[in-house]
Amino acid sequence: MKQQGGAPTMKDVAREAGVALGTVSKVFNELPVGEEYRRRVERAAQKLGYQVNSYARGLKARRTFTVALILPSITGPFFSSLAQELCQVLSAKRYRVLLSLTASDPEAEQRCIQMVQQNKVDGIIGLTYTPDLTVDPQLPYVSIDRYFSPSVPCVASDNFGGGQLAAEKLLALGCKRPLFLRIGSGIPGEPDKRGDGFASACRQHGVEFAELRLRDEDGYEPFRRFLANHLHEGRLEYDGIFCVNDELACKVRAMLAELGLRVPGDVQIIGFDGIRRFATGEYCCSTVVQPVGRLAETCVDLLLREDRSNLPSLVCLPVSYAVGGTTRE
Amino acid sequence: MKQQGGAPTMKDVAREAGVALGTVSKVFNELPVGEEYRRRVERAAQKLGYQVNSYARGLKARRTFTVALILPSITGPFFSSLAQELCQVLSAKRYRVLLSLTASDPEAEQRCIQMVQQNKVDGIIGLTYTPDLTVDPQLPYVSIDRYFSPSVPCVASDNFGGGQLAAEKLLALGCKRPLFLRIGSGIPGEPDKRGDGFASACRQHGVEFAELRLRDEDGYEPFRRFLANHLHEGRLEYDGIFCVNDELACKVRAMLAELGLRVPGDVQIIGFDGIRRFATGEYCCSTVVQPVGRLAETCVDLLLREDRSNLPSLVCLPVSYAVGGTTRE
Repeated sequence: MKQQGGAPTMKDVAREAGVALGTVSKVFNELPVGEEYRRRVERAAQKLGYQVNSYARGLKARRTFTVALILPSITGPFFSSLAQELCQVLSAKRYRVLLSLTASDPEAEQRCIQMVQQNKVDGIIGLTYTPDLTVDPQLPYVSIDRYFSPSVPCVASDNFGGGQLAAEKLLALGCKRPLFLRIGSGIPGEPDKRGDGFASACRQHGVEFAELRLRDEDGYEPFRRFLANHLHEGRLEYDGIFCVNDELACKVRAMLAELGLRVPGDVQIIGFDGIRRFATGEYCCSTVVQPVGRLAETCVDLLLREDRSNLPSLVCLPVSYAVGGTTRE
Repeated sequence: MKQQGGAPTMKDVAREAGVALGTVSKVFNELPVGEEYRRRVERAAQKLGYQVNSYARGLKARRTFTVALILPSITGPFFSSLAQELCQVLSAKRYRVLLSLTASDPEAEQRCIQMVQQNKVDGIIGLTYTPDLTVDPQLPYVSIDRYFSPSVPCVASDNFGGGQLAAEKLLALGCKRPLFLRIGSGIPGEPDKRGDGFASACRQHGVEFAELRLRDEDGYEPFRRFLANHLHEGRLEYDGIFCVNDELACKVRAMLAELGLRVPGDVQIIGFDGIRRFATGEYCCSTVVQPVGRLAETCVDLLLREDRSNLPSLVCLPVSYAVGGTTRE
């Protein structure tokens, strides 16, 4: 690790470039200036190792080149890959990322919003659970997975389509008695449509299906009881299970193993999210894959769009199916 | 989502509090002022919903209450839980987190450092791979897992002790021919000591051991060949394997299964990191657990310590052993 000497000033840059101080200031503040002057100033700044004080620059240009990212957490594999993609997309556009984690707590979410507004960020990308967040209407905001109002763009995977896809896959793989299992927040959100899409496709194919929908506070135990109660002479009533996410799919697979059932031999399971082992390895179960990279790009595009007169209120991106050992194919 | 009306100004706060404008300014800039005045200003600011412009405040107080976090990525389960803990610790101290991901690329790492210095952060916590980063010596910097110089504190798990622990565990579980497998960066770092500790403990117990140390660019294939080459009549020469991290441990387990070997029946495996399924579930293998919460707390404590005259150059935190299905216990 090297250490730097005394920092050069804007005056040093002006001297080195052979231009007036005002010209240097214009270049650093991204104000109009002749192309040749801009090049000379940039060359001089680079040569001297001059660092633009973008703090002061933010005050002048009324832009901070900083975006706030508000997520419940980044330990889960879906949130961490989403955060990773958002950081990469923003960084490629030379934006900084201010990261706030809220543990889905409404107070923490509102505190974050206040805090980043104080810090004059250029916009917020949030995956939040508070139904009535107070946000400065002047500040660009893009919501992930949660619809607030027509004026706040919401970006999500095509959750409904993903639920349909899971049902059609299970039926095509020979399942006769499909089951949908759900656990999640009590606050309505786009992922709720996964079950709706599944139900819709089953109905369309004239296939009877069952479901058990729980909230996070219920825990996983009711699933275990439900499965045990529907086991008759070593056979489960259901032969195809769509789980609302991959984490539940993996837990259900373990529960079925405890009941002596083989996956995918006796029961086939499809999850949702597209989680891979250690982020880059195999899929941890057969799954409906969320297009994380495209979600991130869409959020950033909407957030930084110059013309804000015609923003969409909901953008859904296409999902895909991936085999991960819990279905026959 | 609610929308706000016109923002109140410092003048409005002064009027509401019945104090001079200068008093309001002092309170917001954390300069000395009578306690009763401070209370009146804070009450008025809260009542009006006044938001301190901490951008301008940062310029005056020379503090930004922002810490830059530089990591290679946050998709891997270890990095994502480390980032999560660091965010939580910093947020509890009312610091904001500026997150930069570098993909271990030296140029990206140096660019990040320049960028956050421009942004006047109060300090940097970095897990980087560039041996000769240029960092402003005035800016507090804490390095994770990589030792730079006596003046830059480095925080890491007790990697050497963890390697010893793994060896002693395998020997206590009856292993006679231990093996160490490593894959990682070519840049020296604290995690290299895992193998050193393992070797040291084996030697101390008078037990012969083998090892295969690879770099990331080698890929996993050489491990597969090595294991196949040391398989004789359906038995592996080695009965206990210490892998440098949990990801490798899980991959080695799958390779052994392909060779028809049972884990932990024929071969026992211990990894390193303490990765849990979906962040909060079971350990994905028997493992040496890194104390991620304590690592984060220690980094933040060192970074924000007021008296910087006597900082340690290396702080190692204790690891622990956890059973995760790849050892007999």
